[in-house]
Amino acid sequence: MTEKGLCIVVSAPSGSGKSTICRRLLAACPDMEFSVSFTSRPPRPNEIDGKDYHFVSREDFQRRIERGEFVEWVENYGEFYGTSGRALQDLLRRGKDLLLDIEPRGAKEMKKKFQEGVFVFVLPPSLDELLKRLQKRGHETPEAIQKRFAQAASELEEVLWYDYAVMNEDLDTAVGQLIAIYRAEKCRTSRLLGAINHLCSSIKKEV
Amino acid sequence: MTEKGLCIVVSAPSGSGKSTICRRLLAACPDMEFSVSFTSRPPRPNEIDGKDYHFVSREDFQRRIERGEFVEWVENYGEFYGTSGRALQDLLRRGKDLLLDIEPRGAKEMKKKFQEGVFVFVLPPSLDELLKRLQKRGHETPEAIQKRFAQAASELEEVLWYDYAVMNEDLDTAVGQLIAIYRAEKCRTSRLLGAINHLCSSIKKEV
Repeated sequence: MTEKGLCIVVSAPSGSGKSTICRRLLAACPDMEFSVSFTSRPPRPNEIDGKDYHFVSREDFQRRIERGEFVEWVENYGEFYGTSGRALQDLLRRGKDLLLDIEPRGAKEMKKKFQEGVFVFVLPPSLDELLKRLQKRGHETPEAIQKRFAQAASELEEVLWYDYAVMNEDLDTAVGQLIAIYRAEKCRTSRLLGAINHLCSSIKKEV
Repeated sequence: MTEKGLCIVVSAPSGSGKSTICRRLLAACPDMEFSVSFTSRPPRPNEIDGKDYHFVSREDFQRRIERGEFVEWVENYGEFYGTSGRALQDLLRRGKDLLLDIEPRGAKEMKKKFQEGVFVFVLPPSLDELLKRLQKRGHETPEAIQKRFAQAASELEEVLWYDYAVMNEDLDTAVGQLIAIYRAEKCRTSRLLGAINHLCSSIKKEV
């Protein structure tokens, strides 16, 4: 019997280093797959359809909303982003472990409908460090940076309803913690009922 | 502010390799301490008072029971074994992480009074393997082995109320899983409220 897959949702405000951590997690855990979201925004030059996102038209996205296809979706700066519940459940039933990269608003919606998910929030180590990282990107105006910083601040308090918090002070430590969360959650008794029942029933026969 | 320590309770039926796993966990995690139980049984030649157990008289143990000192205690083959709740809480308040090695009966009692503990059950990989390991010890009669085997079987079903189950098929993997559980539990949001509040309040001042 295949145990159902595990679904890890990672959120973080801008400048927390989430994308790097997620990439490193996927590289370290070959059993884990990245769950590809849908979006109505056009692909950037280096993005691949079906790998980075499923790129669909605005109309297509709206039809999917109407059909109730998304386990979470948000509109951000006029573009839609969402996770297909059907695709997700289908992969999990086949025993795949999934990594989802979702912003706090979407994650909160998902948490309501999908309690079995494991929700992890990546925190910047400090306020100064967060600002430094936002400034380092170097392609934004001071006003844009200040706006991002204010948004990050308002998002930070969302950490309280997440299952886990990973403080990204040192990248290796943060990645190690995320891997530990993944490995530990695979050992949850509630996720191993198939193997446990198999062991217990064989013992009943024998003794 | 020191975050409160974490308490990991490990149980397993005889022949599951629990002692070895616990020793390896302690060696790998210098921040973790072994919680020393009380017992009324006399020390074995290689055992050290205060390290392996607190060895006390039967009368002393019974007075401690009457004073409600134990967070769990059991009588096994005529001898008492128990964990002092006061000593435990004192160490946890000082931020120590503790490893407790407690049999399922005692762990179940502890779970009722001490919900913040993390309960891990170490499982043998299979029935055959369990029997083989019990036989390998080589110092017991076939009848004694059969008795232990039957007891192990009855204890195995207790795994269902534990938080985590570690299948000890390969020692390194099992130790790695226990370390992952420890590291992951340290990242639980509910255990990091001090650091999170500190971060959030500094951001409120700044923005």
